[in-house]
Amino acid sequence: MKYGIIGYSGRMGQAIEELFAEAGHQLVYKKDEKTTKEIEKPELIIDFSLKEAFAETVAIVKAKEVPLIIGTTGLEAADFAKLKELAAEVAVIQSFNFSIGINILSELIQKVNNYLDQDWDIEISETHHRFKKDKPSGTAIMLSELLDQNPEMHSKRLGSEFGEHEIDFASTGELLTLKHRAYSREAFSKGVLISAQKIINMEPGFYKFSQILK
Amino acid sequence: MKYGIIGYSGRMGQAIEELFAEAGHQLVYKKDEKTTKEIEKPELIIDFSLKEAFAETVAIVKAKEVPLIIGTTGLEAADFAKLKELAAEVAVIQSFNFSIGINILSELIQKVNNYLDQDWDIEISETHHRFKKDKPSGTAIMLSELLDQNPEMHSKRLGSEFGEHEIDFASTGELLTLKHRAYSREAFSKGVLISAQKIINMEPGFYKFSQILK
Amino acid sequence: MKYGIIGYSGRMGQAIEELFAEAGHQLVYKKDEKTTKEIEKPELIIDFSLKEAFAETVAIVKAKEVPLIIGTTGLEAADFAKLKELAAEVAVIQSFNFSIGINILSELIQKVNNYLDQDWDIEISETHHRFKKDKPSGTAIMLSELLDQNPEMHSKRLGSEFGEHEIDFASTGELLTLKHRAYSREAFSKGVLISAQKIINMEPGFYKFSQILK
Amino acid sequence: MKYGIIGYSGRMGQAIEELFAEAGHQLVYKKDEKTTKEIEKPELIIDFSLKEAFAETVAIVKAKEVPLIIGTTGLEAADFAKLKELAAEVAVIQSFNFSIGINILSELIQKVNNYLDQDWDIEISETHHRFKKDKPSGTAIMLSELLDQNPEMHSKRLGSEFGEHEIDFASTGELLTLKHRAYSREAFSKGVLISAQKIINMEPGFYKFSQILK
Repeated sequence: MKYGIIGYSGRMGQAIEELFAEAGHQLVYKKDEKTTKEIEKPELIIDFSLKEAFAETVAIVKAKEVPLIIGTTGLEAADFAKLKELAAEVAVIQSFNFSIGINILSELIQKVNNYLDQDWDIEISETHHRFKKDKPSGTAIMLSELLDQNPEMHSKRLGSEFGEHEIDFASTGELLTLKHRAYSREAFSKGVLISAQKIINMEPGFYKFSQILK
Repeated sequence: MKYGIIGYSGRMGQAIEELFAEAGHQLVYKKDEKTTKEIEKPELIIDFSLKEAFAETVAIVKAKEVPLIIGTTGLEAADFAKLKELAAEVAVIQSFNFSIGINILSELIQKVNNYLDQDWDIEISETHHRFKKDKPSGTAIMLSELLDQNPEMHSKRLGSEFGEHEIDFASTGELLTLKHRAYSREAFSKGVLISAQKIINMEPGFYKFSQILK
Repeated sequence: MKYGIIGYSGRMGQAIEELFAEAGHQLVYKKDEKTTKEIEKPELIIDFSLKEAFAETVAIVKAKEVPLIIGTTGLEAADFAKLKELAAEVAVIQSFNFSIGINILSELIQKVNNYLDQDWDIEISETHHRFKKDKPSGTAIMLSELLDQNPEMHSKRLGSEFGEHEIDFASTGELLTLKHRAYSREAFSKGVLISAQKIINMEPGFYKFSQILK
Repeated sequence: MKYGIIGYSGRMGQAIEELFAEAGHQLVYKKDEKTTKEIEKPELIIDFSLKEAFAETVAIVKAKEVPLIIGTTGLEAADFAKLKELAAEVAVIQSFNFSIGINILSELIQKVNNYLDQDWDIEISETHHRFKKDKPSGTAIMLSELLDQNPEMHSKRLGSEFGEHEIDFASTGELLTLKHRAYSREAFSKGVLISAQKIINMEPGFYKFSQILK
């Protein structure tokens, strides 16, 4: 397929370009804060840029009338309203986390949550590299919000760990542990690739990445 | 409630008696290979005895017309046919593993299995105490049969580990690990207690423990 | 051997009695808060009682002139002074933790500590059953004091976990993890048994359990 | 410092060049199978090439009279004899594994091995990416040879795992686990950097990397 990236010089943009190239796809439109380069009209646009560029992204997608995959962080209610408006015209897939594993983990946590009564202890742990300042991670908070209980959170900051999340459920008889580790940014770019393969045949509409996975 | 145990002098029988006593239930009928003691007619019967005693267990339950919870191992197709016949008259809950966690784990594995394509590596590991001879454990085999793939199996025999099962799913981007550890036989007796609390109000019929959990 | 226990009705006393019986040793003297029973003069005395009983323990050992193994918690500087005085006459082995594994772990941590410069991140985690109130555990504090750095501590309270301690050392290139899990009180009673087997042939003197292990 | 790399276009050569550049060192001599480029005489030479190039490496180092750090795999007894001959003239540091963590782990395993009697179960597990064909890994074999016992080995091949080794020691009372994970090739290039910093002030002689670490 022929695709475009907004925010192509960022880390996610680079990871997407690498993985898509391996899969034989062609980057025909690329844009970042400073430059725009269009070789050909893309069949879809992938946006991993900044919240500040959001209005421009929407305008570009509207003008080109192509589907949008958007993973830009920090979007708020007003932005989602605009995305849904755009989704009347083109297919839009949005997520703050395109990891397949984290999305499956979220499903699993909800399933376990439905089984358990109050007699289970639940704790969440996450480990990230030493340079990550925020504790707990956004993903850990997102996972905790899937639970009826309010679990204790633990944050380790160790070496170069790319990102590990663990959730423990324990009764007095047993312990169930669900754990996810991202090896690299490829954990996310793979989810974008899956989304891209599907979005080119999808009807206009607003979709979460978790819906695409099913 | 007033309940009975067939196989009450076995390890599971003892664990059930202990947990049920804590929960305020009264053991009014108990039977093992050598002795039978009936203080009062039980409201339900729990069988954790041996395959050899199966015909007698069915006869007793039929005579008393009370529900049956059965965890005896080694039952075969013919035995299940008899259980289902019995289930026309009384409620019957059967499982080879009454651990809540293992049953939830089975559900989770099936869910993950549905998400994954062939590009995921899957391996199963189990750890048990040094005295466990069979490798891999029956539970590990049961878990492996839930998967489309045929995963590699690893068996560790270490110290006094009561029982740990782990399943790893990995793509080139990420790793998802589901892990269960039983602390003690209470992992199983708790599932029996939950079954007992429900079975006294259930219609005749044959139920797997996993259906009770939902 | 013929041995005695002070504090024999406590949990550690019971665990010691069980393990020593399996090893063919004979409990000939037992004492707790309420009763004293002496069948024969013991060859050594094991004390797992309370700090409150310490003065009496010392008096008994002095009178009987037999070696002492003492694991009573809460002993302070003045108590140690008395133990060392007693050690002029009989062999005394003292420890707050008779687990072989925890003592080896302590040695390993000191060894790793000597190798590392300030560019390593160190974190300590411990997991215990839901009923353990104090955080972090005494053992976790003891382990942290072996390090030049002041590591971050994490305490999980989950189900029936008997006791798990983990220490992570990470640079930007790699992660080294040392982990200990006690399966049961046998982790401690085994260390007492090893001490008992050695103490009957030892010269008077004050010994830490870690010295006995070497 | 001004240094040279033989085998500079290989993966380890690249990783070394990157880390040394960050540390402010200057690559003045580089050689691989096809090309040699010498800007200036190096103060030391690092060799991560192939066994086939070994004779030439020795000749170059002899001619330049500079210290040598060598991590080339597959060296045999005759090669070590030549290295020791060379070590009469210059300092030589050799290892098949320049990871600080693996070297510390080796020390720890030897220490634990000295403490344990035959009543401990020992098992070794290693996990590497799906593309690693050999099982068990060379490092796992090397670690197993440090033990008196002959431990069971487990090899998992999962996703993109760079390299994880675990060793479990268990008695009926407790479990001690030592685990190492390399995040990336930096685990090894850091050890080369430490060696380089020391070797420029070292007397002629043959040294293992483990001696340098102490």
